[in-house]
Amino acid sequence: MVQFEAALDQTFGALSDNTRRAILMRLGRSEASLGELAEGFEMTLTGLKKHVQVLEGAGLVTTRKVGRVRQCKLGPRRLEEVTKWMASYRTMLEQRLDSLEDFLERTKGAP
Amino acid sequence: MVQFEAALDQTFGALSDNTRRAILMRLGRSEASLGELAEGFEMTLTGLKKHVQVLEGAGLVTTRKVGRVRQCKLGPRRLEEVTKWMASYRTMLEQRLDSLEDFLERTKGAP
Repeated sequence: MVQFEAALDQTFGALSDNTRRAILMRLGRSEASLGELAEGFEMTLTGLKKHVQVLEGAGLVTTRKVGRVRQCKLGPRRLEEVTKWMASYRTMLEQRLDSLEDFLERTKGAP
Repeated sequence: MVQFEAALDQTFGALSDNTRRAILMRLGRSEASLGELAEGFEMTLTGLKKHVQVLEGAGLVTTRKVGRVRQCKLGPRRLEEVTKWMASYRTMLEQRLDSLEDFLERTKGAP
């Protein structure tokens, strides 16, 4: 459970930046080198690298060295934890709504 | 669009902490004062307040002063942006899978 929570912290943190979300979408289309990503996002290589490292730390991206180039692709994690958490949050909201409806139903006939 | 992205940054950021996620779930059950939350989470009032401020900034929690007590409840935002982003990410992953299947299909008969 602690591990699940730590993974969630990391994943939500990685997703809390517009550029990092855009990198994920870009890598969804095809692999790309750090240089290609930096060019595409009009960023310095250093700035881009930091974002990729955060995504890599969260398992959302993996990188490998091919010659002198570092290639990036989507990692093994597919936001399963986030999907699960969102589902439990939605369930909680629905239960709230049910309780509210019950309450309105019960008090309908009241003076 | 920029506003949507900023809201997403803020929401994902707010969700990137275990305690903040737990506060949301707790407030889903019922409203609570800052003091009650601090007690429940065994935190100092100052520490708890910081988390609530982040959640409030993201519109996930609202607070109001009732006498000398600050009451907290779930805010107007219901993670709609996160749900939308998750859906577009899932679509992207599915399209990848489709492309892979197409590729395997096309190369099946190849020598």
